[in-house]
Amino acid sequence: MIILIKQGAEKSQVDNLINWLKAHNIDPHISVGSHETLIGCVGDVAHLDIDLVSALDVVASVQRVGDPYKAANRKFHPDDSIIDCGGQLIGGGHFQVIAGPCSVESEEQIIEVAKAVKAAGATLLRGGAFKPRTSPYSFQGLGVEGLKMLVAAKKETGLPIVTELMNFSQFEYFNDVDVIQIGARNMQNFDILKEVGHNTQKPILLKRGLSSTLQELLMSAEYIMASGNPNVILCERGIRTFETATRNTIDLSVVPLLHQFSHLPVVVDPSHATGVARLVHPVAVAATAIGADGLIIEVHNDPPKAKCDGAQSQTPQMFAETMKAIKAVRPYACR
Amino acid sequence: MIILIKQGAEKSQVDNLINWLKAHNIDPHISVGSHETLIGCVGDVAHLDIDLVSALDVVASVQRVGDPYKAANRKFHPDDSIIDCGGQLIGGGHFQVIAGPCSVESEEQIIEVAKAVKAAGATLLRGGAFKPRTSPYSFQGLGVEGLKMLVAAKKETGLPIVTELMNFSQFEYFNDVDVIQIGARNMQNFDILKEVGHNTQKPILLKRGLSSTLQELLMSAEYIMASGNPNVILCERGIRTFETATRNTIDLSVVPLLHQFSHLPVVVDPSHATGVARLVHPVAVAATAIGADGLIIEVHNDPPKAKCDGAQSQTPQMFAETMKAIKAVRPYACR
Amino acid sequence: MIILIKQGAEKSQVDNLINWLKAHNIDPHISVGSHETLIGCVGDVAHLDIDLVSALDVVASVQRVGDPYKAANRKFHPDDSIIDCGGQLIGGGHFQVIAGPCSVESEEQIIEVAKAVKAAGATLLRGGAFKPRTSPYSFQGLGVEGLKMLVAAKKETGLPIVTELMNFSQFEYFNDVDVIQIGARNMQNFDILKEVGHNTQKPILLKRGLSSTLQELLMSAEYIMASGNPNVILCERGIRTFETATRNTIDLSVVPLLHQFSHLPVVVDPSHATGVARLVHPVAVAATAIGADGLIIEVHNDPPKAKCDGAQSQTPQMFAETMKAIKAVRPYACR
Amino acid sequence: MIILIKQGAEKSQVDNLINWLKAHNIDPHISVGSHETLIGCVGDVAHLDIDLVSALDVVASVQRVGDPYKAANRKFHPDDSIIDCGGQLIGGGHFQVIAGPCSVESEEQIIEVAKAVKAAGATLLRGGAFKPRTSPYSFQGLGVEGLKMLVAAKKETGLPIVTELMNFSQFEYFNDVDVIQIGARNMQNFDILKEVGHNTQKPILLKRGLSSTLQELLMSAEYIMASGNPNVILCERGIRTFETATRNTIDLSVVPLLHQFSHLPVVVDPSHATGVARLVHPVAVAATAIGADGLIIEVHNDPPKAKCDGAQSQTPQMFAETMKAIKAVRPYACR
Repeated sequence: MIILIKQGAEKSQVDNLINWLKAHNIDPHISVGSHETLIGCVGDVAHLDIDLVSALDVVASVQRVGDPYKAANRKFHPDDSIIDCGGQLIGGGHFQVIAGPCSVESEEQIIEVAKAVKAAGATLLRGGAFKPRTSPYSFQGLGVEGLKMLVAAKKETGLPIVTELMNFSQFEYFNDVDVIQIGARNMQNFDILKEVGHNTQKPILLKRGLSSTLQELLMSAEYIMASGNPNVILCERGIRTFETATRNTIDLSVVPLLHQFSHLPVVVDPSHATGVARLVHPVAVAATAIGADGLIIEVHNDPPKAKCDGAQSQTPQMFAETMKAIKAVRPYACR
Repeated sequence: MIILIKQGAEKSQVDNLINWLKAHNIDPHISVGSHETLIGCVGDVAHLDIDLVSALDVVASVQRVGDPYKAANRKFHPDDSIIDCGGQLIGGGHFQVIAGPCSVESEEQIIEVAKAVKAAGATLLRGGAFKPRTSPYSFQGLGVEGLKMLVAAKKETGLPIVTELMNFSQFEYFNDVDVIQIGARNMQNFDILKEVGHNTQKPILLKRGLSSTLQELLMSAEYIMASGNPNVILCERGIRTFETATRNTIDLSVVPLLHQFSHLPVVVDPSHATGVARLVHPVAVAATAIGADGLIIEVHNDPPKAKCDGAQSQTPQMFAETMKAIKAVRPYACR
Repeated sequence: MIILIKQGAEKSQVDNLINWLKAHNIDPHISVGSHETLIGCVGDVAHLDIDLVSALDVVASVQRVGDPYKAANRKFHPDDSIIDCGGQLIGGGHFQVIAGPCSVESEEQIIEVAKAVKAAGATLLRGGAFKPRTSPYSFQGLGVEGLKMLVAAKKETGLPIVTELMNFSQFEYFNDVDVIQIGARNMQNFDILKEVGHNTQKPILLKRGLSSTLQELLMSAEYIMASGNPNVILCERGIRTFETATRNTIDLSVVPLLHQFSHLPVVVDPSHATGVARLVHPVAVAATAIGADGLIIEVHNDPPKAKCDGAQSQTPQMFAETMKAIKAVRPYACR
Repeated sequence: MIILIKQGAEKSQVDNLINWLKAHNIDPHISVGSHETLIGCVGDVAHLDIDLVSALDVVASVQRVGDPYKAANRKFHPDDSIIDCGGQLIGGGHFQVIAGPCSVESEEQIIEVAKAVKAAGATLLRGGAFKPRTSPYSFQGLGVEGLKMLVAAKKETGLPIVTELMNFSQFEYFNDVDVIQIGARNMQNFDILKEVGHNTQKPILLKRGLSSTLQELLMSAEYIMASGNPNVILCERGIRTFETATRNTIDLSVVPLLHQFSHLPVVVDPSHATGVARLVHPVAVAATAIGADGLIIEVHNDPPKAKCDGAQSQTPQMFAETMKAIKAVRPYACR
């Protein structure tokens, strides 16, 4: 952490600051120049509240040099984390494709899609029971009934299941769920992060918020891990920018960056990232090539009749083509 | 709603679409040109899922013309809503200033700040008990104890109180709270929106998400209103952009725009919008001039020792200066 | 400037870096901690290429603490610059309103508008002769003929004139122009910045680019000033964000920020910032209240027939109302 | 184009609008509903100024349905354009890698890099002679002398050369240049677009602006093409977003999108997109996999001593590794 002292600060004030830093186990090194004074702080600053320092009267600005996350930090855990998702491993060279409809609509539908994606090569099944929708007038998911249908599809096909938890009060129904998804709009719902940290060891698929920085994503992972659950999978699903040609802007350079910063696996969601079915295939291939540890893809047996996200859902036929392309490119993936 | 039909679509498919629209009480008007066919849809399209239409095989693109919100829409409620906040009215020409610390730290502190902001002219008291923090290692608020201290300050000063609800399980402790704040990071936590809609008639101060469009903000208000609580106050608190000179970018043109789209009052938060104490004053003055129905300002008796957001907190002296400037400019405010 | 040394760097490499810094008249102070080594650099780093340092093998990261601009920097020029714009002063407490049509369309039109805006209180006339348009099929301005019409309006009304230079080859026709505008899309056309720096002492109205940071805006001002012309006026005209309800997002907190960083005057353009005529009035009032040194507003005698930007142009009647509101709020402006 | 008529508009006004549209060869179809009236316009609207229509008194809003670009539009030119770049073809299945230093620094340097990148498999040489730099104090390139050195490297290696034109006055020195680059900051310098359209048939490598939409990029290509030069290569080089972990955010979904909208080739620049040398390799591989028609990569013989962009430059050794990975993944690229 670097502290820039205001011009004209009194020595007594600077001394106070130095003593305060020492009291927090920070080792301050002072550089006095003709125009400015800097204090370089070495030591464990991850637990220090940077806003507090920057509010001090003598401080012109503060810049953190170290990382504010520890549990998620590759520096302290050099080896890749490998997460067991109902028997399917993700991370450390293990690559999985999660596929299924945006929302579970009926037992027939989810079983039909599950069989189709399994036949094409998917190794986990996704499907929404509790759905976050921008409009209160849009279909909100089948809820607990939807979860039961998803579990039926798991029994029928053997595929582990991934589904979103929107509210911790729903947790009691998640016994048979293999991977719990925390959606982009809840990435900074800190209470739910703590709750899935405290109460379960199931893998958490944590989606990046629409305008979250990589550091914020890692801090949200840190909430879960610091609460007791180390099994976090990071998910890039596109960010919000000025460009309107796609629903979101997929930020693929985050895959190697997150691998540099953290030991956690990184999965890419090309369906939400683009919002356009015909772009899912090329983005899935590119995400595989750049070294993602997995993909999560929306597939619907009849997209025009889908109750949500029909525009971005692949048909089972499209998905089978995409799986072929993914398998072909996978041996040449980075890392 | 305007539907653009794909080139080369078969007449039978287009007829199916037309019948489907009619079955949804939409009146379709067809325009056939040499290169493209358009269907203009008039009728109540607010309840229609636009994604569903755009996923249809014959559809090239869909554009909504009408608004997807009704309860919040000024078209259907031409008069300004006036919200009673523990005796203080906001909206329809009534202007209030909410002030207080980011977080309640002790009973002495909150009472001291409450008295100071009341003396300067604030009419409601804010203070956080449950605090959303990016880092799990930052101070998370005093919780229920903090709420009790806030209520003590209310009793001492008579100021109605505003505080954030992060999780509906905390609601039982909010009996003496006058205005419930839903924070920016929870603006699309749809479950909590429904819960404060179903379970209370208290005013909800709904903060705009970091990267939420105005329409999304209004749709989140719609969630609360459609669930039974019409008392929503919209709050602009800055959006996330590429500019890093301020914490967020304050978007003041939203004040007249929200007043055009909706009958709900609009409050501005210059503290979070800028993240810099010395910018709070000019932004507060500009927000007043452009016609905001109120302001919410962070004031701390000793900002450098604040447990959060010290960098953006005014001292009581700064706040008193700002109140003078606000009162001076208020008679010349737009609207 | 703070340099973070990579973990495990050899002492000889660090020594080389230190010698290199000294050779550039930088005074390095070293802080060695258990996990990291920092070098604090004090001295004149404005002329140092930060990218060069960050590319060095031993360097993990570099953060600039000082400002990379000097001529535009308030630290070295504490007093406000006051710019003479054909007899009208801008800055240092002098406030002017520039008004006129997006483009000059005919001599009758520009004279009619000039008289109308003068009658309402405008003190400079704007009008485009060379127009930057997104589409090659849109009206591109009347060029040299348009400039002549603008000069005729200046003669008729006595108002100094402001118009855009798109290409330095047009400069020979700008003899009678009082203020030269460099448009947002040319803010980083570094050749034209140098050219208007070298070849004239006329005031340059420099518009912020659509996605330019404040620092980049100041660096572009620095180009003009370092080339010999100190008469630069900064102009905020909205930035590009995800929000689509307005053409751009007006960023009013830049007014006090630019005044803090620089001694140059700051003008606000509410017309381009919003793109909507009915929002020009409230944004103009807010910009005045926050302390802008001037405004630039599009006014057209018959907006629906305007050859460009009709949607954001005020009528002379609207403008007269806005001028009244500006004058009323001006005594209460910040600063 | 769809025009939404204001509620309460008079019939005579609507009739005037309809006649005006017909006079512009637009065929209007009217849909009258209980709450709103729509006019669907079919015909050639590419040449119509949409702002002009939206400014009309009776018009509530206008939405364009067709595309405003024609020459660049795939609808009117279904086959891929193949551009001859000094003997190397780009587009329509032809893939090339352009490599070289950010700036030409000496004849020895550029020849050394040219030989190295050729040996690794690059087929065109890049190198900057005129450099756009944010700071007037940064190295601005060797100018005409730099161009001569680049031509010497072309003679020595046979590689065609790509370099940036910042100002049309430099064009006279570009005789031996094979591909003229228009930089991101000049993407909407409409004068230079017209000039390279009028005065040459050489291929133009047009870089996307920092905050330009795909449509704006295509409109800038349209400027060049409408001025007489059909040989345009589009280049994605990252956009500006809130994320600061990379210099820009690479937007790879634009590759399939631009291929859908346009017949022009699309090249990706992983060096500027990321600003970080170690991210160039994975982004280059992903860009190849998603179907780019080429790459442009910064390679420097001694990055720490590079006069610009050292942080994002690969060494020749890194580049050779990247070329291997590109060649391995290329057979599995999309399209």
